[in-house]
Amino acid sequence: MELELIRRLRERFPAHPRLRLGPGDDAAVLEMAGVDQCAMTVDLLTDHVDFELSEVDPRRVGRKALAVNLSDLAAMAAEPLAGVIAVALPRPQAAELAVALYEGILPLAERYGLAIAGGDTNTWDGPLVLSVTLLGRVAPRGPLRRAGARPGDRLLATGSFGGSILGRHLDFEPRVHEALQLHARYALHAGIDVSDGLSLDLSRVLEESGCGATIWADAVPVSDDARRLAEQRADGSTALDHALGDGEDFELLLAVPPHDAERMLAEQPLDGVRLSEFGEFTAEPGLWIEDHEGRRPLEPRGWEH
Amino acid sequence: MELELIRRLRERFPAHPRLRLGPGDDAAVLEMAGVDQCAMTVDLLTDHVDFELSEVDPRRVGRKALAVNLSDLAAMAAEPLAGVIAVALPRPQAAELAVALYEGILPLAERYGLAIAGGDTNTWDGPLVLSVTLLGRVAPRGPLRRAGARPGDRLLATGSFGGSILGRHLDFEPRVHEALQLHARYALHAGIDVSDGLSLDLSRVLEESGCGATIWADAVPVSDDARRLAEQRADGSTALDHALGDGEDFELLLAVPPHDAERMLAEQPLDGVRLSEFGEFTAEPGLWIEDHEGRRPLEPRGWEH
Repeated sequence: MELELIRRLRERFPAHPRLRLGPGDDAAVLEMAGVDQCAMTVDLLTDHVDFELSEVDPRRVGRKALAVNLSDLAAMAAEPLAGVIAVALPRPQAAELAVALYEGILPLAERYGLAIAGGDTNTWDGPLVLSVTLLGRVAPRGPLRRAGARPGDRLLATGSFGGSILGRHLDFEPRVHEALQLHARYALHAGIDVSDGLSLDLSRVLEESGCGATIWADAVPVSDDARRLAEQRADGSTALDHALGDGEDFELLLAVPPHDAERMLAEQPLDGVRLSEFGEFTAEPGLWIEDHEGRRPLEPRGWEH
Repeated sequence: MELELIRRLRERFPAHPRLRLGPGDDAAVLEMAGVDQCAMTVDLLTDHVDFELSEVDPRRVGRKALAVNLSDLAAMAAEPLAGVIAVALPRPQAAELAVALYEGILPLAERYGLAIAGGDTNTWDGPLVLSVTLLGRVAPRGPLRRAGARPGDRLLATGSFGGSILGRHLDFEPRVHEALQLHARYALHAGIDVSDGLSLDLSRVLEESGCGATIWADAVPVSDDARRLAEQRADGSTALDHALGDGEDFELLLAVPPHDAERMLAEQPLDGVRLSEFGEFTAEPGLWIEDHEGRRPLEPRGWEH
């Protein structure tokens, strides 16, 4: 099947000025002149873990597989350049599935100027697996890293958190443009995208930065989905719990020095995406949460792969 | 498990001058100054298709996953630069498996100067899946492509073919140094690595080049493994059949103008790897085989994914 399917897929891959040689050879060839530093990231998604293929349109699955990787580039403040996609397609109807996946992938690639350089298309008797690898151009002022948060920095984020399972985990917009814009305009000390859970991903920033943080409970940007989910489940978890631990929000968490944080909040420079401040980084290690009852340790929660 | 496992794996990843930022952030950062054109390739391997995990040492599986990708870079005459590795590990004993896979991957990466830039480590209830993406530096004279074979070119190959299932498909040496050396020293019109089968991969060169080829049956470099397999199986398939269709030889097939082909054969410039000539490219389309009984069409055979 491979040859015929690959021919059908190749016809759909748009040309791109960066692609000196597109899909169809043993490797693609990319024009890289002028790219001095390049971010490289890979994410592998599997059925029953990252999505339920039997329950969702495969176009949304393809879109998500690309979007989570774009979110990783956003977390580094890197501009998307090119990507390759490897899939293991369950038989039967592997060809139809492949076409649908790419119908989700290609419009998002185009939206972010990403060259689809090729892929590896396999069929097997197992569940659907997609692996996407992206290259991005690191911004002139260097990458946005997890390491770099300093005591006194404010904790800021794009958007809101929790309840992504209600649908947003498939259809989120990666914060690529937002990251590039903020990184160019303000001093960001550290950043991460929230894939596994706000508190868990924040704890990774703390670990890499060698500091602690306090979250101000009342200021956490809790999403409407988090509230809906807390209500639906009625299992004792609050909307705030969902915001802190659900994950797959794919928003940016940022460590920002106070002066720049104030400017960001006052200017709200992002088109349609709100910036919130809801904590600060501390010399004292550990993750803490503070509300009207006081301050206590917060156990990082989220998705452990 | 991810955090602890990733910590253990990261300790094993050697530093590399190209890695400005290694594994542990949302993406790795690679130094790319001076790399004007970059080859990018991905191959995804799955249990029961590319290997049988229950029957082989996982170190050999890890090694193979990297080696098949290095072979793709060799087929483009590109020098290995950096790579990322994504795995879906079956529970239980996912951690032990991951460590063993990397024990196969890392020595081969070091041998070819490849920076391991990071990866994505997942566990699931499915079979083992590995996806490896590599970047390579395209040679100054440009990439070696599938397209470019011309009527009159000779068909040359490194090494010998057939019977790789007896073990060579796991332990082969990718022809990276050989490809770089030959591409720099001789005029190569086209090239491919034989992953799916000599005749099938050759047919891909013919398709991309828009010409035909005749294989001289008596001159095909048939491996000892092909002879052994023909004897063991005794199913009517000859050693030559195995050489033409088994695949996973990971040798280079080359289209070379006659003058350079003569030089290559006379000089035999490769250390420990023999170059053979066993056919020629023709204006007449199609794949043909010629022996003492005459010339007839040859159906391309091999592994269709």
